[in-house]
Amino acid sequence: MRRAPADTDWMAVAIALSRRARPGAAPNPNVGCLIVRNGRVVARGWTGAGGRPHAEAAALAVAGAGARGATAYVSLEPCAHESMRGPACADSLIAAGVSRVVIASQDPDPRTDGAGIARLRAAGVEVVTDVLTADARAAMAPWWTRQVAARPFVTLKLATSLDGCIALADGSSRWITGPRARAHGHLERAGHQAILVGRRTLDIDAPRLDVRLPGLEKRSPDKLLLTRGTAPEGWAAVASPEAVTGLDSVLVEGGAGAAAAFLAADRVDRLLLYRAPILIGGGRPALGDIGLGDLADAHDRWRLVDSRLLGSDRLDVYERTRRD
Amino acid sequence: MRRAPADTDWMAVAIALSRRARPGAAPNPNVGCLIVRNGRVVARGWTGAGGRPHAEAAALAVAGAGARGATAYVSLEPCAHESMRGPACADSLIAAGVSRVVIASQDPDPRTDGAGIARLRAAGVEVVTDVLTADARAAMAPWWTRQVAARPFVTLKLATSLDGCIALADGSSRWITGPRARAHGHLERAGHQAILVGRRTLDIDAPRLDVRLPGLEKRSPDKLLLTRGTAPEGWAAVASPEAVTGLDSVLVEGGAGAAAAFLAADRVDRLLLYRAPILIGGGRPALGDIGLGDLADAHDRWRLVDSRLLGSDRLDVYERTRRD
Repeated sequence: MRRAPADTDWMAVAIALSRRARPGAAPNPNVGCLIVRNGRVVARGWTGAGGRPHAEAAALAVAGAGARGATAYVSLEPCAHESMRGPACADSLIAAGVSRVVIASQDPDPRTDGAGIARLRAAGVEVVTDVLTADARAAMAPWWTRQVAARPFVTLKLATSLDGCIALADGSSRWITGPRARAHGHLERAGHQAILVGRRTLDIDAPRLDVRLPGLEKRSPDKLLLTRGTAPEGWAAVASPEAVTGLDSVLVEGGAGAAAAFLAADRVDRLLLYRAPILIGGGRPALGDIGLGDLADAHDRWRLVDSRLLGSDRLDVYERTRRD
Repeated sequence: MRRAPADTDWMAVAIALSRRARPGAAPNPNVGCLIVRNGRVVARGWTGAGGRPHAEAAALAVAGAGARGATAYVSLEPCAHESMRGPACADSLIAAGVSRVVIASQDPDPRTDGAGIARLRAAGVEVVTDVLTADARAAMAPWWTRQVAARPFVTLKLATSLDGCIALADGSSRWITGPRARAHGHLERAGHQAILVGRRTLDIDAPRLDVRLPGLEKRSPDKLLLTRGTAPEGWAAVASPEAVTGLDSVLVEGGAGAAAAFLAADRVDRLLLYRAPILIGGGRPALGDIGLGDLADAHDRWRLVDSRLLGSDRLDVYERTRRD
């Protein structure tokens, strides 16, 4: 006999939907919403590009009268604030006759922050909170980081040989990784609001830093240059890792100096390590000095969250372990 | 309905048994033997320490009269040469009444090299050859390499951070990897006839290079020092990678110079890459110059054959792709 889906099962689907809204939803949170009635999915929704429609509005538009008496699973607390761009989602859920709302994470935005839950309950809607909270926050890590820590969620990409080199001693680096790893790197670009490189990488490699994947060309992110000087046309200059603000997500693509600067400032949240099955020997190291004085301090900072083969290359994804 | 085991299934067992004889069988080949009658295992055997008894003799001693009419699965052709240490295995199999012999690989030793097969057939024994040949040769790669290429099978061990460093800039390297990875490294030591380090590693780290695993202390291998000078008490000096002879297996444990010397000479057959989930940045690189002039030449040399987590560290095992 098949077990009936539990709240956590439905919420896992809502969280998966929330990932579809990255990075287009920025600066709004990427949220997923699933409307379920009598054990069947009535509608699915996620935040639209530019932040509208909200996930609940998208799902309710599909559900229509089917929302009456249904349960809505939302990865983030429904908003309690109206705006010129639409009504508050808490009000919309009440108006649609939803009888139960299951929420993964409360919204830290001071305009909501519990007010959405309170409004639903005041209207007689049953509200369940804190279902798969950590998963939902992980799915909206860039928005969450900016919201609660006032800084972007930073991913550092390194593409190295087995011995940790990013180029030969003469600087040649085409190609270390193969086509599948490079395509994955382009997909990661499409998932970020901005890409950052250091001055030396710009001068030597003159990277295009665009998304060269069919159908995703328009998702090419903004370009940031880490420099105390000025940036060329089409680029924005930032003087330090701490100076990168006003963004949810930044992908640091190199080189060793820029990578080290972000690590030294403890501003890297996620590490993409593409590794080709080659040995270089005496080549250019992936990282410059990051200010590590004692090996003991290097441990327990990175947690492996994904590992896969991309052709003959391996991608390992690590996340910074932080106690937020 | 369960399928009856095929010759390849039984041979896989014999090959697994052959691995038990490493490295104790050296300088003899490590061989496995399985005796099967009416679909049931009658006896198992593998080469003893120092090369005797041979796998067939060990299995026949267990089988006794049970060998009559049975099939013997052997990972290497039974020897055709008597010695003061025992009779030829081909003769022993015939005398025991074995009616069928299945062989993975012919023996390249000129004293056998087909003569064992011929003697069995002349006595009316059915002989099947070339069953899982590549697997059997891989299981006795050290002996095979010495036999056909007149050089040892060399494993290079590297224990690095994610950015490919083996130490901080000040040389400190205790500890990069954790206890499970270090224990695995000790197990690898126990599987080799000799361990080699460079002069600088000896002077700075003064490594004990013994096997510190309960029950395996006596398996500590010989110690080689890569140097143009002399070696201290308890060590043997070798002037170059090519000068390492008279051994089946050598484990190169460091440092960056010794590792690079073996790679530059293309004398590394297997790579053990232990990697801790830490970043060092600006530390000591795993490898010195290996003479690579063009990135294209670095590709298609290494094949991933195993990957596992050891605590929070990862071990990737690569083998050199050679067309022997």
